[in-house]
Amino acid sequence: MEENSVLVFGSVAYDCIETPFDKADYILGGSASYAALASSFFAPTKMVGVVGGDFKQDDIRRLSARGIDIRGLEIKSEGQTFFWRGKYCNNFNERDTLEVRVNVYENYDPKIPEALRNCPFVLLGNIDPSVQTKVLDKMESPRFVILDTMNLWIEIANKPLRELIKRADILILNDSEARQLANENNLILCGDLLREMGAKSVIIKKGEHGAMLFHADGFFTLPAYPVRALHDPTGAGDSFAGALAGYMAGAGSTDFETIKRAMLAGTAAASITVESFSCYKLEESGLAEVEAREEHIRKITAV
Amino acid sequence: MEENSVLVFGSVAYDCIETPFDKADYILGGSASYAALASSFFAPTKMVGVVGGDFKQDDIRRLSARGIDIRGLEIKSEGQTFFWRGKYCNNFNERDTLEVRVNVYENYDPKIPEALRNCPFVLLGNIDPSVQTKVLDKMESPRFVILDTMNLWIEIANKPLRELIKRADILILNDSEARQLANENNLILCGDLLREMGAKSVIIKKGEHGAMLFHADGFFTLPAYPVRALHDPTGAGDSFAGALAGYMAGAGSTDFETIKRAMLAGTAAASITVESFSCYKLEESGLAEVEAREEHIRKITAV
Repeated sequence: MEENSVLVFGSVAYDCIETPFDKADYILGGSASYAALASSFFAPTKMVGVVGGDFKQDDIRRLSARGIDIRGLEIKSEGQTFFWRGKYCNNFNERDTLEVRVNVYENYDPKIPEALRNCPFVLLGNIDPSVQTKVLDKMESPRFVILDTMNLWIEIANKPLRELIKRADILILNDSEARQLANENNLILCGDLLREMGAKSVIIKKGEHGAMLFHADGFFTLPAYPVRALHDPTGAGDSFAGALAGYMAGAGSTDFETIKRAMLAGTAAASITVESFSCYKLEESGLAEVEAREEHIRKITAV
Repeated sequence: MEENSVLVFGSVAYDCIETPFDKADYILGGSASYAALASSFFAPTKMVGVVGGDFKQDDIRRLSARGIDIRGLEIKSEGQTFFWRGKYCNNFNERDTLEVRVNVYENYDPKIPEALRNCPFVLLGNIDPSVQTKVLDKMESPRFVILDTMNLWIEIANKPLRELIKRADILILNDSEARQLANENNLILCGDLLREMGAKSVIIKKGEHGAMLFHADGFFTLPAYPVRALHDPTGAGDSFAGALAGYMAGAGSTDFETIKRAMLAGTAAASITVESFSCYKLEESGLAEVEAREEHIRKITAV
């Protein structure tokens, strides 16, 4: 086990996506796929999840090609991979979920191979908080836990989510989710309230408006990278969380200054992800492009 | 005439405002009032506008107390001051205009005293673009022109507004107005398109999400100051524009770096304005508080 590796848990899925300009069928998606690929630029990354017999060898190769450890990726050959069909409309302002088939994630009992249980950095990607809890329970005293979630779980699994938040070093959620969970409109106050719920620190993502960090050592805010060629927003948040976790693990540090720089990495990775379907652009661009964007964000915020 | 003074033109008004928490009647408002008060912290400021016989001596004193030159503030004693009644609801997410009485601004022909016509910095605060044009026509080769506007004029005075934009060194507008005028959803592309319309540079204000600058020398973005005690958003944009103009005039410089620092001043001033009705908090706080907030914004964005 490498000192500073990341265990990424979440969904591994096939997505059918329609945007105002384009469409794609059965492309690799899911919170764990995006997050693991983004994390792998910065640190050794181990992925935990489950896929069905329909999962393509090519997609296994995509993950392996980035050096991702997939010993924790269970293959249920008799089942089907998690499936999501969605459509972006009104100039990307709305996203409709047209179809979800949980498939192999139904009654899924996550198995963490022994060799992965002492991974120091754990990213619990967006999925049912009860299952996230099962994964965390199986880890051996992780050094740093990053928890991502979404509105669905705030609504239907509020109690287990709130319990899990108390174990998070960073809780990540978007602006509307933060407002919903904190029951407060002012996002600055939301950050304070969510920390009071027990998360050591909180990152609120605001899409095109960037992200904010609420931490015991202070407040920090970062704009989004100025994307001119938005192609598909799917996976932006997962890529952000993955690069954040990977950067911190790679740096081997968890302090306020490191989290700020990790948010820069996350913002850069997310901006690349949205310029293509799936992780195609992120895989093709590589670390050099991620770092060039980090540098550009520093430049456009310096005053 | 001081070398680096600002001429602020716009509305001077009495507002009746209701927020989710509080209400206030007949308080000093209008784009020129907020802008001139914010500008006056940084540079000699001259105000041009018109009020009625109901305009209170106390409010004259408020402006004079900040050293604002009000020789260009016409008093039509037989008329009534511009009046606006508005209500913020749904946690400040919506603003309804309940009543507008243009009063002395109806058929107003702006008079610029001879001594004010060679003012080098001109801020055309939000008002009918035909009237803004009349003011600009009367100025003697201004060095730098800042133009503010709003959705109403994009809708009902699109042609004169577009003509005026070609004469602006900086066009300021908010995100929804930028989308409307550029007919484009992606704000980054909006900035490019609005510069193509002829504005030398463009600032898009995004309220709680900060502001972006599109300039020949590059792109720059700044978050909002993290306001925890939002009281009344009225005048935030006008205060931003006023402090921006004042800062540039005070610095005596118009380059990209100066505009960035001027946006910092504008952001700080706007954050103080929204913490009270009218300009009460801004007047009371003074330059020290504005500068402390500028420094805080530097701190929360540094990475």
